[in-house]
Amino acid sequence: MSAPLNVTVWNEFRHERHAGHEAGVVYPDGMHQTIAAFLNATGDIVAGTATLDEPEHGLTQDVLDATDVLIWWGHCAHHEVADAVVARVHQRVLDGMGLVVLHSGHFSKIFQRLMGTGCNLKWREAGENERLWVIERGHPIAEGLGEWIDLPHEEMYGEPFDIPAPDTLVFVSWFKGGEVFRSGACYHRGHGKVFYFRPGHETFPTYHNPEIQKVITNAVRWAAPLQNGPRMVFGNVQPLETL
Amino acid sequence: MSAPLNVTVWNEFRHERHAGHEAGVVYPDGMHQTIAAFLNATGDIVAGTATLDEPEHGLTQDVLDATDVLIWWGHCAHHEVADAVVARVHQRVLDGMGLVVLHSGHFSKIFQRLMGTGCNLKWREAGENERLWVIERGHPIAEGLGEWIDLPHEEMYGEPFDIPAPDTLVFVSWFKGGEVFRSGACYHRGHGKVFYFRPGHETFPTYHNPEIQKVITNAVRWAAPLQNGPRMVFGNVQPLETL
Amino acid sequence: MSAPLNVTVWNEFRHERHAGHEAGVVYPDGMHQTIAAFLNATGDIVAGTATLDEPEHGLTQDVLDATDVLIWWGHCAHHEVADAVVARVHQRVLDGMGLVVLHSGHFSKIFQRLMGTGCNLKWREAGENERLWVIERGHPIAEGLGEWIDLPHEEMYGEPFDIPAPDTLVFVSWFKGGEVFRSGACYHRGHGKVFYFRPGHETFPTYHNPEIQKVITNAVRWAAPLQNGPRMVFGNVQPLETL
Amino acid sequence: MSAPLNVTVWNEFRHERHAGHEAGVVYPDGMHQTIAAFLNATGDIVAGTATLDEPEHGLTQDVLDATDVLIWWGHCAHHEVADAVVARVHQRVLDGMGLVVLHSGHFSKIFQRLMGTGCNLKWREAGENERLWVIERGHPIAEGLGEWIDLPHEEMYGEPFDIPAPDTLVFVSWFKGGEVFRSGACYHRGHGKVFYFRPGHETFPTYHNPEIQKVITNAVRWAAPLQNGPRMVFGNVQPLETL
Repeated sequence: MSAPLNVTVWNEFRHERHAGHEAGVVYPDGMHQTIAAFLNATGDIVAGTATLDEPEHGLTQDVLDATDVLIWWGHCAHHEVADAVVARVHQRVLDGMGLVVLHSGHFSKIFQRLMGTGCNLKWREAGENERLWVIERGHPIAEGLGEWIDLPHEEMYGEPFDIPAPDTLVFVSWFKGGEVFRSGACYHRGHGKVFYFRPGHETFPTYHNPEIQKVITNAVRWAAPLQNGPRMVFGNVQPLETL
Repeated sequence: MSAPLNVTVWNEFRHERHAGHEAGVVYPDGMHQTIAAFLNATGDIVAGTATLDEPEHGLTQDVLDATDVLIWWGHCAHHEVADAVVARVHQRVLDGMGLVVLHSGHFSKIFQRLMGTGCNLKWREAGENERLWVIERGHPIAEGLGEWIDLPHEEMYGEPFDIPAPDTLVFVSWFKGGEVFRSGACYHRGHGKVFYFRPGHETFPTYHNPEIQKVITNAVRWAAPLQNGPRMVFGNVQPLETL
Repeated sequence: MSAPLNVTVWNEFRHERHAGHEAGVVYPDGMHQTIAAFLNATGDIVAGTATLDEPEHGLTQDVLDATDVLIWWGHCAHHEVADAVVARVHQRVLDGMGLVVLHSGHFSKIFQRLMGTGCNLKWREAGENERLWVIERGHPIAEGLGEWIDLPHEEMYGEPFDIPAPDTLVFVSWFKGGEVFRSGACYHRGHGKVFYFRPGHETFPTYHNPEIQKVITNAVRWAAPLQNGPRMVFGNVQPLETL
Repeated sequence: MSAPLNVTVWNEFRHERHAGHEAGVVYPDGMHQTIAAFLNATGDIVAGTATLDEPEHGLTQDVLDATDVLIWWGHCAHHEVADAVVARVHQRVLDGMGLVVLHSGHFSKIFQRLMGTGCNLKWREAGENERLWVIERGHPIAEGLGEWIDLPHEEMYGEPFDIPAPDTLVFVSWFKGGEVFRSGACYHRGHGKVFYFRPGHETFPTYHNPEIQKVITNAVRWAAPLQNGPRMVFGNVQPLETL
């Protein structure tokens, strides 16, 4: 309503730099740059980036403290993310920072830690048709969409998806090969809000798709911290004066 | 664990009696008899039946008072169900009777009243493949099942399904034609428990399928009233003595 | 972010006009005027009013079509609200209009219809201390609040509160006499969002309280319809082209 | 329905052995023995015990594999529980073992890991009156109870309680000093079910209370694993044959 929303787009950024990998063709500057670009184009979101191979993975305490919403894409190098950085991100989420976890980020340390489950799933790299159906039509993350989003070619993720039942289930995906998947899932954790969004295999142009961009933009706004949100006071307390 | 569970299977019972209708071939005595038969075969469930064209639709106060769990199948004659009977069933659910609503019962007066929404959906009678995926694997309604149930020929129901988000979402269906559907949904309403289960178009042998029978049997056990459940006391109360 | 939000504050408006009733002292122009005034003071909300004794209770189709969020306060005359108007409001909620139900509105026809339950509760008019604790601290309806709100004198409402479990439980109230109550409850219904908020007995200056005003203002923003939200298409559909 | 339910009651068992500590007066053999005794008295539950100072804290893989439901009480020595044992318990819960976490177990490593949040809260050792209100009256954990349970003297726990919103909220506590607390909370995690139950400070005879014993017994039955529950198959899969 005023100050811009500060977003940091975190990307593992390995596939895109791997010689001859299709990801580098689809996202020559990395997926994080594509995502940051469409967020910056909104006018009221200021999106920067951070990647695995930067010092502290680009996620210093200062960066996190200045981040309203963190977006996370990782895949083949989840184990390389330092536990200390994971702990730092976790605490920031509990303190109110929003977190949008994309695609293969389902297996990231930070998502597993926030969910408390294994976060495993079925998958198949067949480039088949995914259709994301809007399930909760009054939810702000679905704003401006039609009844579904069609992606002609995506990696399949299938149930069981080992996550806690979402606070709100916004999307369910249909895959041509016969599977379904809870592909848009909202959670409150501490002061923070977490959104998992399924699409985005590195070899498909999913993050160039305007409807997918719309969802991620909506999710950033939904996950933004409250202004002057309530502080949590824990520990030993005196009886309150009752009136 | 003791007294048997008393179930009443309610069926509109019109399609099956319509001359030349396929439903009469698949269910010569009516779907209610098929359902009651497999429930009675469990040994600890005693299932009777009631149908639309009986006096008071077979759902007198006495019948309902003696019913632990009511199963409901209706389709073309929802509007013929008397409002007084709907009110009676509604009150019994709030007082603890379980309710299992099947297939086209989504549009019944009783389900709409309990949901508070329109309960509308997409549909297509193409006899296409439905696959019900188990989403909440620790739920008693999923006991004894594999990861999914395949029905080679069913009517399609598709999202948006205009219901409140379930307290627990147990199944999501995939349809070959491109849709998904929340096909197994649990609700607490008052003292009662409600389960909506999608499959069961009248021209397909769905209720002869052992896995579908397993789900309905599980649902009956889950929806059974508590023994000596807590009474609700409403209205004007004095301050409680505090200790 | 642009067009103002259009709110209609509906009030039964009987207590305040009853000669010698305390409500008329606390709210000389009616609670609806007090509520509309603080909403209008925000600058980006335009709040009008409607009351029971106006033709069609002030809720014509035109008024409802122009309303983004409807606020509802009723108490002693719930039964006087015409069923046709209730049906009209119900449909508008399913189509996306937000609804904020206050205090004794728990027993209104529209709230019962949306909930599908009896919505009964315990109560006591003792003017005792209520303390509303924030339970979901990251929810926008809690924005700008401390950990709790203290109301020195309110009517008590106690559990059991015969409602469906909320999609999100934002507040739980403590009462000095020994009861608790789910006092801030969010629901999605169709395209619409519903918030029930407990405080506001007509003889106490609750709606003059700045923190209560903050909650209601937050709730209006949360319940606002989506801009260009997804349309629901129901009924018989052809198979989708799959890609 | 057949085989007995195997329960392991785990207790830190330090307070009770501390010379002169009130806990040893109230629970001379330790809280685990009191809890195991009332469970064994049911006839169809077989309850053993395990404690912190046994090798592997008494929770070897063999013990866990033979446990249907694990009960957990810890307080001052959470940090002494080996991470390897926590990981083992965590995996067993995801595989279907039930877990009932009592009182100060809210800060145990296993509960924090399953919740994904800090699980912090307010507290006060004043021995004040706690009243647990039943919120979801149709839930099996509330079977056989009245509308509330009164404990004349308990430690206070107050909101904010930093947990994910429960899948089902069964109890909310009122405390004389002015706080409320979500004191009975159900979660599905993987194949397993988790119940957090608040009461049980070591210096009060809470686990001798028949109503508290009823709740814990109900919770054990609710949390029991499914018989032949669905197996989860993760990883790379071929397209399913569609019918």
